[in-house]
Amino acid sequence: MCPPPNELYQFSVVSALMDGVASDGLPLSSLLEEGDHGLGTFRNMTGELIVVDGEAYQMRHDGTVVPAPGQPDSEGYHKTSVTPFAMVTKFAPSVTTTAPIQAKDGVEPVLARLVPDARNTHIAFRLDGAFRSITVRTAAGQCFPGEGLRDVASRQNELVIGPLRGTVVGFRSPQFLQGVAVAGVHMHFIDDDRQAGGHVLALETDGEVTVQVAELWRTVMDLPRGDKQFNEATLALNAEGIAAIEG
Amino acid sequence: MCPPPNELYQFSVVSALMDGVASDGLPLSSLLEEGDHGLGTFRNMTGELIVVDGEAYQMRHDGTVVPAPGQPDSEGYHKTSVTPFAMVTKFAPSVTTTAPIQAKDGVEPVLARLVPDARNTHIAFRLDGAFRSITVRTAAGQCFPGEGLRDVASRQNELVIGPLRGTVVGFRSPQFLQGVAVAGVHMHFIDDDRQAGGHVLALETDGEVTVQVAELWRTVMDLPRGDKQFNEATLALNAEGIAAIEG
Repeated sequence: MCPPPNELYQFSVVSALMDGVASDGLPLSSLLEEGDHGLGTFRNMTGELIVVDGEAYQMRHDGTVVPAPGQPDSEGYHKTSVTPFAMVTKFAPSVTTTAPIQAKDGVEPVLARLVPDARNTHIAFRLDGAFRSITVRTAAGQCFPGEGLRDVASRQNELVIGPLRGTVVGFRSPQFLQGVAVAGVHMHFIDDDRQAGGHVLALETDGEVTVQVAELWRTVMDLPRGDKQFNEATLALNAEGIAAIEG
Repeated sequence: MCPPPNELYQFSVVSALMDGVASDGLPLSSLLEEGDHGLGTFRNMTGELIVVDGEAYQMRHDGTVVPAPGQPDSEGYHKTSVTPFAMVTKFAPSVTTTAPIQAKDGVEPVLARLVPDARNTHIAFRLDGAFRSITVRTAAGQCFPGEGLRDVASRQNELVIGPLRGTVVGFRSPQFLQGVAVAGVHMHFIDDDRQAGGHVLALETDGEVTVQVAELWRTVMDLPRGDKQFNEATLALNAEGIAAIEG
């Protein structure tokens, strides 16, 4: 089935990751039927997921990048090809332009100017160009089932990569959806060679980058049915914790 | 188009009502394409909406009930046949039983027992039977555009009705969705003659009632596109305020 363009599809909620619900999830193959642009994580929070032009990649803790779902390997990465949390859309940007974005803080003001009528809904965006440097983190995975995102993130690997050309895939979500999604700007990066990337902590561009934006007014959200861990989780909203980790 | 059974369709979010976003919305006729069981409100928060067996009713502040969308009348109620917030589903209960539910507080434990694997997702439910009394409130509407739900609710009319036979249409939503929906149990009542009803504040049954429950694992949420009032609203989460009014 072909999803309509510019609907947000999300599996589970960020609050569930905060509570460590990551032992199971949606097969990557099912996720890719719902969109061609997006981000998320993998079983046990092993690395970062980026979906770009309909292809999914797992950006691992050791700095390597593999297509997902990939072939089984000696480390068993194929076992992680389910996602306990992801957001994707069939990306059909309504705006394509170039803009000087010097730093991560510069992304939001550009988006706000380009889609001023979408303050209180999700938007999907994409940046393409030359980056002087990108600081990325990749989650190393849970040490035990149920370990919360905050603890997983405390062991995150931070890498500064670049200069290189690549793509930022992101969403901006409204404040009132904190906990369901990540309020504010949430971005993953992958380079043109599909060799390096991660969750974006900081960026410096080399002049102007191409910016594409789509407003997403409809959300389809599936919650993890038949998932005992999800059913038994507390899932209290931890807005401050999410802002600290994902912002 | 016919929606699949037991998906939650929601238009807008409760946080928007809290901020007084109620000048526009989804036509009732469009809402009724998305489900046959549900609740919500009307333009300017004029009365309470209940959808039961595919029929929609407006339960007004003066205690009267009219089909919605109805015929234009001298008071202009036809103008309110758009909903700024509503939740509906095509209700296909997986459980039908009878249970003694003495009071409003007794509803949640019965639901929890009937669908123990749905703690962290929405459920839709319905109660049918004889009620000794029901305390309902009906919102009188905003005094000015943008007036928040808390102030509107402070002028609510409370009526004790019964004994009578009727139907409770409700949803139970998880805590982590407070602000998107109403966390906990949210119920509207209408009597068998479609003459009286409202948002349920208290109830006493006359012995056992029929209870029907469905688990809702997929949500489709539309946000108010092209709605200037929605776009300009702050929409901060006000969990405490919602619990005080809608609980």
